[in-house]
Amino acid sequence: MLKPLGERVVVKRYEAEEKTASGIILPGQAKEKPQMAEVVAVGAKVKDVKVGDTVLLKKYGGNEVKLDGVEYIIVEAEDLLAIVEK
Amino acid sequence: MLKPLGERVVVKRYEAEEKTASGIILPGQAKEKPQMAEVVAVGAKVKDVKVGDTVLLKKYGGNEVKLDGVEYIIVEAEDLLAIVEK
Amino acid sequence: MLKPLGERVVVKRYEAEEKTASGIILPGQAKEKPQMAEVVAVGAKVKDVKVGDTVLLKKYGGNEVKLDGVEYIIVEAEDLLAIVEK
Amino acid sequence: MLKPLGERVVVKRYEAEEKTASGIILPGQAKEKPQMAEVVAVGAKVKDVKVGDTVLLKKYGGNEVKLDGVEYIIVEAEDLLAIVEK
Amino acid sequence: MLKPLGERVVVKRYEAEEKTASGIILPGQAKEKPQMAEVVAVGAKVKDVKVGDTVLLKKYGGNEVKLDGVEYIIVEAEDLLAIVEK
Amino acid sequence: MLKPLGERVVVKRYEAEEKTASGIILPGQAKEKPQMAEVVAVGAKVKDVKVGDTVLLKKYGGNEVKLDGVEYIIVEAEDLLAIVEK
Amino acid sequence: MLKPLGERVVVKRYEAEEKTASGIILPGQAKEKPQMAEVVAVGAKVKDVKVGDTVLLKKYGGNEVKLDGVEYIIVEAEDLLAIVEK
Repeated sequence: MLKPLGERVVVKRYEAEEKTASGIILPGQAKEKPQMAEVVAVGAKVKDVKVGDTVLLKKYGGNEVKLDGVEYIIVEAEDLLAIVEK
Repeated sequence: MLKPLGERVVVKRYEAEEKTASGIILPGQAKEKPQMAEVVAVGAKVKDVKVGDTVLLKKYGGNEVKLDGVEYIIVEAEDLLAIVEK
Repeated sequence: MLKPLGERVVVKRYEAEEKTASGIILPGQAKEKPQMAEVVAVGAKVKDVKVGDTVLLKKYGGNEVKLDGVEYIIVEAEDLLAIVEK
Repeated sequence: MLKPLGERVVVKRYEAEEKTASGIILPGQAKEKPQMAEVVAVGAKVKDVKVGDTVLLKKYGGNEVKLDGVEYIIVEAEDLLAIVEK
Repeated sequence: MLKPLGERVVVKRYEAEEKTASGIILPGQAKEKPQMAEVVAVGAKVKDVKVGDTVLLKKYGGNEVKLDGVEYIIVEAEDLLAIVEK
Repeated sequence: MLKPLGERVVVKRYEAEEKTASGIILPGQAKEKPQMAEVVAVGAKVKDVKVGDTVLLKKYGGNEVKLDGVEYIIVEAEDLLAIVEK
Repeated sequence: MLKPLGERVVVKRYEAEEKTASGIILPGQAKEKPQMAEVVAVGAKVKDVKVGDTVLLKKYGGNEVKLDGVEYIIVEAEDLLAIVEK
C-alpha cells in the first residue's frame, strides 16, 4: 500500500473515453485536457479531497508507479482541479 | 457536476463574436484578447466572483473539460480579469 | 461596465502622439516607451490611483478588451508607472 | 556513516525490477517512473520518514555517493513521494 | 508633472561623458556601466533618495518618457545603486 | 585567513579517489557525484557544521580561491549534503 | 564620494595576480575565480563588512563606475563571499 508524503495524493486514472455516471467523457489522448481519476490515498496534510473522490487532474505532471499490475499516479494535491460530483 | 478545488473557478465560455446586453464584442480568434465567460461553479476559497457572474478571463491558460457535451474551463480565480456588469 | 478584479485597473489609452495639457508627447509606436492612459475603473484593492487619473503604463503587458466599440486595457496596478499631474 | 544535513535523507536504492513483499515492480530503466529505496539516515529536520522505511523517490535528482562499495543517494525529503507500507 | 507610483523614482539622466564637480566621468555608451542621473520625483514609499540627489542607476531597465521635450526615466528605487555626494 | 560571510563555509577538497578511514571513495571526475571536503571555516550564521567536519558537497557550485598555494572552495552551507562521520 | 544604497557596498578591486600580505594570489583572468577587493563604502543596511575590509567577491556581477580615474565596483553585500583576515 502507498502512503503519500506531504500534500500528495495517489490516484487511479479512469480509462480513456470512459463514460461515468455523471456523463463526462474525457478523451485521454486529447492534448491539454484534464484527466479523470479516483483518489485511492491521501497524504496527512491533504484536506480538500478524500479516498473515493472522483477528481480531475492536469494531464501532465505526477509520478506513475505500478502496484500489483495496476498503474497509479502520485500527484501534488494542488494539481487536482476539481471533484466530479454525482 | 464539477466542484472546483482551491481557488479555482469553472466557467462556460461565450461563443466567439457574441454580443451581450452590455454591448461587448469579443472576437474569440483574436490573439491576446481576453475571453468572456459565465461562472458556473466556484471553489471554497474564492471570494470575488460568484455563480452567474459574467467574467473576462485571459485567453490562454485554464484546463478544458467536457460535461454532457458542453465545454467548460477550470481556471485559477487570479486569472479572471474583470466582472462584466450589466 | 467593467469591474476589475484583484489589484487590476481598467484604462483607456490616449491616442499615439497626442499632446496633453501638461505637454507630454508619447509616440505610441516607439519601442519600450510607456503609454499614457486614463483610469476608467479600479479594483477593490487598488489604493494609489483613482478613476479619472491620467497614468503612464508599461508599453507591454495588460489585456485588451473592446466595450461598445472603445478599446480598454485591463492592467495590474503595479504596472502603472506614474500619475501625470496637470 | 553519513549524517544528512538540513531536510535531506540518505537512501539505498532497490535493484531495478526487484519484486518486494508488497508486490510493486519498478522498472528502473523506464523514464519518469519513481524509484523504490530504503531510508538509511535522515537529517535532523526530517519528520515524515524514518530509518528503515521503504520509499518512492523521483527518478531524477538527488546526489549519489559510494560508501564501502555500496551506492547511496542523498535526496531532499520533499522529493520523497510516498512510503510503501507492507 | 510626474508623480511616480509605488517605490518608483523619476530621474533625468546626465549627458554622456559629462564631468561633474565630484569628477566622475561616465561614458554613456560603455556596456554595463551605470548611468548618472538627477532625481526629479520620488514615489510615496521611497525612503533612501530625495529630489535633487545625484544617483547612479543601472544602465538597463527603467521606462523612458518625454515631458516638454526633456527625457526622463522612471525606475524602481531598488535599481538605484548609489548617491553621488559632493 | 578567510572568514566566510553570511551562511557560507570554506572547505578544502579531498583529493580525487582518496580513501578515508570510513572507506568512502569519491571519484572526483565522475559527473554529478558529490565531493568530499574538510570544513576549515564557517560563517557566523552557520549552525549545522563546524571546523574539522568532513562533509559531502555538490560537485558543482561554490567559488574556488587559492591561499598560500592551497585551493579552497567557498560554498553556501545549504549546498553541503551530509557530514561523514567516522 | 559614493554612498551605496540598500544593501550595497562599493569596493576597489586589487590588481590581477597581486600578492597580499596574507599570501593569496588571485589570477584575475581565470574563469569563475572570486576577486579580491577593498571595501571603500557600505550602505546603511550592511552589517557584516566595514570600510577597509579586504573581501572576496564573485567574479561576475556588480556595476563598475569610474571616480577620478579609479574604477570601483558597486556590489550587493550578499555577493561578498568572505573577509580576508591578516
